Amino acid sequence: MGKYVVGIDFGTLSARALVAEVGTGRELASASMDYPHGVMDERLPDGTRLPPDWALQHPRDYLDCLADTIPRALDRAGVSAADVIGLGLDFTACTILPVDADGEPLCLNPELAGNPHAYVKLWKHHAAQDEANALNRIAEERGERFLARYGGKISSEWAIPKIWQTLDEAPEIYAAADKFIEAGDWVVRSLIGYEARSSCLAGYKAIWHKREGYPSSEFFAALDHRLKNVVDEKLSRDIRPVCTKAGELTESGARLTGLVPGTAVAVSGVDAHISLPPAGITEAGKMLMIMGTSTCHVMISDQERIVPGMCGVVEDGVIPGLMGYEAGQSCVGDHFNWFVETLFPAEYKDEAEKRGVSPFALLTEKAEKLKPGESGLLALDWWNGNRSVLVDVDLTGMMLGMTLLTKPEEIYRALIEATAYGTRVIIDTFEKHGVAIDGLYACGGIAQKDPFLMQVYADVTGREIRVARSAQAPALGSAMYGAVAAGAAKGGYDSIVDAAREMGGILDKVYVPSPAARAVYQELYDEYILLHDYFGRGGNDVMKRLKAIRKREIG
Amino acid sequence: MGKYVVGIDFGTLSARALVAEVGTGRELASASMDYPHGVMDERLPDGTRLPPDWALQHPRDYLDCLADTIPRALDRAGVSAADVIGLGLDFTACTILPVDADGEPLCLNPELAGNPHAYVKLWKHHAAQDEANALNRIAEERGERFLARYGGKISSEWAIPKIWQTLDEAPEIYAAADKFIEAGDWVVRSLIGYEARSSCLAGYKAIWHKREGYPSSEFFAALDHRLKNVVDEKLSRDIRPVCTKAGELTESGARLTGLVPGTAVAVSGVDAHISLPPAGITEAGKMLMIMGTSTCHVMISDQERIVPGMCGVVEDGVIPGLMGYEAGQSCVGDHFNWFVETLFPAEYKDEAEKRGVSPFALLTEKAEKLKPGESGLLALDWWNGNRSVLVDVDLTGMMLGMTLLTKPEEIYRALIEATAYGTRVIIDTFEKHGVAIDGLYACGGIAQKDPFLMQVYADVTGREIRVARSAQAPALGSAMYGAVAAGAAKGGYDSIVDAAREMGGILDKVYVPSPAARAVYQELYDEYILLHDYFGRGGNDVMKRLKAIRKREIG
Repeated sequence: MGKYVVGIDFGTLSARALVAEVGTGRELASASMDYPHGVMDERLPDGTRLPPDWALQHPRDYLDCLADTIPRALDRAGVSAADVIGLGLDFTACTILPVDADGEPLCLNPELAGNPHAYVKLWKHHAAQDEANALNRIAEERGERFLARYGGKISSEWAIPKIWQTLDEAPEIYAAADKFIEAGDWVVRSLIGYEARSSCLAGYKAIWHKREGYPSSEFFAALDHRLKNVVDEKLSRDIRPVCTKAGELTESGARLTGLVPGTAVAVSGVDAHISLPPAGITEAGKMLMIMGTSTCHVMISDQERIVPGMCGVVEDGVIPGLMGYEAGQSCVGDHFNWFVETLFPAEYKDEAEKRGVSPFALLTEKAEKLKPGESGLLALDWWNGNRSVLVDVDLTGMMLGMTLLTKPEEIYRALIEATAYGTRVIIDTFEKHGVAIDGLYACGGIAQKDPFLMQVYADVTGREIRVARSAQAPALGSAMYGAVAAGAAKGGYDSIVDAAREMGGILDKVYVPSPAARAVYQELYDEYILLHDYFGRGGNDVMKRLKAIRKREIG
Repeated sequence: MGKYVVGIDFGTLSARALVAEVGTGRELASASMDYPHGVMDERLPDGTRLPPDWALQHPRDYLDCLADTIPRALDRAGVSAADVIGLGLDFTACTILPVDADGEPLCLNPELAGNPHAYVKLWKHHAAQDEANALNRIAEERGERFLARYGGKISSEWAIPKIWQTLDEAPEIYAAADKFIEAGDWVVRSLIGYEARSSCLAGYKAIWHKREGYPSSEFFAALDHRLKNVVDEKLSRDIRPVCTKAGELTESGARLTGLVPGTAVAVSGVDAHISLPPAGITEAGKMLMIMGTSTCHVMISDQERIVPGMCGVVEDGVIPGLMGYEAGQSCVGDHFNWFVETLFPAEYKDEAEKRGVSPFALLTEKAEKLKPGESGLLALDWWNGNRSVLVDVDLTGMMLGMTLLTKPEEIYRALIEATAYGTRVIIDTFEKHGVAIDGLYACGGIAQKDPFLMQVYADVTGREIRVARSAQAPALGSAMYGAVAAGAAKGGYDSIVDAAREMGGILDKVYVPSPAARAVYQELYDEYILLHDYFGRGGNDVMKRLKAIRKREIG
């Protein structure tokens, strides 16, 4: 009888449980469930209105999803709970909530349930921008070294701005909170009965460093005197490396999940970072692109270097003992969706419907007949700002080269190429700052479904690209974390390296750059860089000025 | 009983005859006819294949159109030929043909009818680019002063490159030609029995200058020794000012047109330039925008100044005794057509069809709800290169400011605004170089039909704009030329100023700039200029490099 592990991927709208076989990585079955409360961005459950830019969740949804999806996935897989040796989970982050001393979310306290700050602030809650701006200004004035590890800017999406916003706007909630905790860590706590906070969550989202710890209390006091001891009062200095065991299922955790008490539970991770082992990646020098509406670039290295414009570098952030780097493009699939939703012409829609193909398939079919350089178009992929390496949300899109003969598929291809150039900027920046990349991998929907795009990326980057075998890499990665938490003695693994070797892997298809295409794309990339620097590094701040005019005019 | 005049507007695809009343300018009736051979850009009538970039016409079509349209228009108007005192015509230019000593087109000679060079080379025949390039290079090397009068470049569309191409590729046709003549002048000759070449055609298209004449024979010899005496051998130095009488209808001219022998015939003009008198414009300091797929800016001044990037300045070119300046934007309505044909989304198409409105009406309705600056978009209107003031066909379109929320109507509005900025650049350049503009007028389809666009132009230029009353200004202008050719003694006018006062005029509606919109557009225009100069004046020649890459890759 085989041994099995369960991985749960907590996404923005739903959670998915996957049952995988230890030793092979075979994915037996999965089950998913939408969060009953979804994303609360207009009202609380009691009808309380939320201001703009808010995005909350309800923590009970996470447990409800566990209770629903794990038994269903086991059932579909035909696997008995007794044969499940470990459980792991990944979560969106920073997705953070205030809890009381028993770990109960404050929003479950009827007296506090009408206060928005008592709920989970989802990663895309953007109402802490004022706090983030103040934090960055003060950190810069003080010359705080941690800024450089995060591309020079702490995002409003991260933990400290969100906690500070709570203090600013709802000091009673801040006071009532025994702790603020990432939702991933909170679910682990709910399963094992005590906290085992993740190095990945703390490192990328809460300015924690394995050797230097958190920012100093002087820094926090400079933000707000009441924050001086925020780490000791509201967070924790007890941070566990990922790919280790957090604890074992308690009786109540077992009742909730339908698993057996004592089942090993792993320290939680972030969806992007946990996707490396499923692609078989555990060594320094490899970069994985997690490609969807946006792209997250995660890479591991044995050196800590300061790379301008990355999102973060965290020791133990991805693989214990190695540096995990994160960078990103804030708009990838979103570009293509925007184009299809906004400018897909009626004639093409008719053709797609007649032939029973999707708009994307039709555009791809037409775009792949073009040669590199044939459209004469060049775009900057900044429809949603630029995350890496410019770290500037106020940049916007640009396209040039249009003529009266320009066709929709040429624009579509130019958007794809622009995102490929954006990825190459990230790769080149890492290498220029001493972080060598000797293997490029991809996972996520686009990587699995769009061979044309992947070939463009290979041609633009001049690198072979390998694609993770799993179509649900985060869930499989979570399951692999569970296998490591169980340990070899219980039929799992003693290290993520062993787990990745047996359970991870890539598809047979390797995207190999074509020398001819690569040569043309080198010319086009040189042009991209000229424009990237002109519009992105202060040569002409027209995009920001237009945004400011827009803001003023719409009032 | 009133007196009447007939004006004929020879366009690219058809000719239109208009009957107008002297004294009022009332347009009684018109009739039009498509050229039977249309534009020949693939084959001759005998099946001979044409190379790319060729565009020919058949001269018999012009006479057939006269014979068809004038009698029909008179009939519809209920006007007797005996009451028609004059006839005028305008033509596309440079639209040029070789003729024998009797004025017979060489293509009517059966022995030459299989030679493409024997036909009319239409204005948009673009196969003389090599000759134009060589001409410009040699003129520049020799420091020829005439270049400055034409924005520094002689177009491949104009007379000398087209004649030179004939010499290069078909010396037997060049030798057989007694003369090369503009089609407008040739039709006049066919009506009156002798040549009366137009100052407008010679000045704007054949490098003729009222005081300096043509370029020197040394210059022509430097092009090709066989061209040394091209002016005396193949053209004419006898050039007549516009707004004068060319002659009178011969018996055969009368038979052809159904008019009375002896009817006054005017020296011919160009459609754009002939449109000023119908708008009531005969004074220095007024600019008329003829707005259609492209826009032509014609203005009159009492001073000859060198304005960089204009298409030409010609004394007697528009109004006798005054300087006529021409400038242009090579893509105006064409931008909007491109957008609707290429990127008009299915959802909008459905809405337009359901509501029974055109795509343009729907886009306008949505676009005019936006405030200036609200879209955050800015475009360079170079989808078809830039005619004035950069004189560069290798420039291409650019747009920036796009976000994931950008809508089709915002793009549409940005394209309209871009063409308005382009017009303002032309106006500002004239004024900066000493040619004051104290009145701005418009005519053409867009000016008549698109009040939203006209308001944007008023707001962007900060000037009141008046619109010509006539919806067929070139044909009315031709008729007015006919009235001046007839003279006051015959019931017409002795000067175009008198004709314009009585027969020309504007609509009641005046577009007045809104101070608030003007202020925002000033900011946006400043941004436009930054980008205009960066991409158009050598700051970054990326558009040209992309075009070169494109050309190379499509082979």
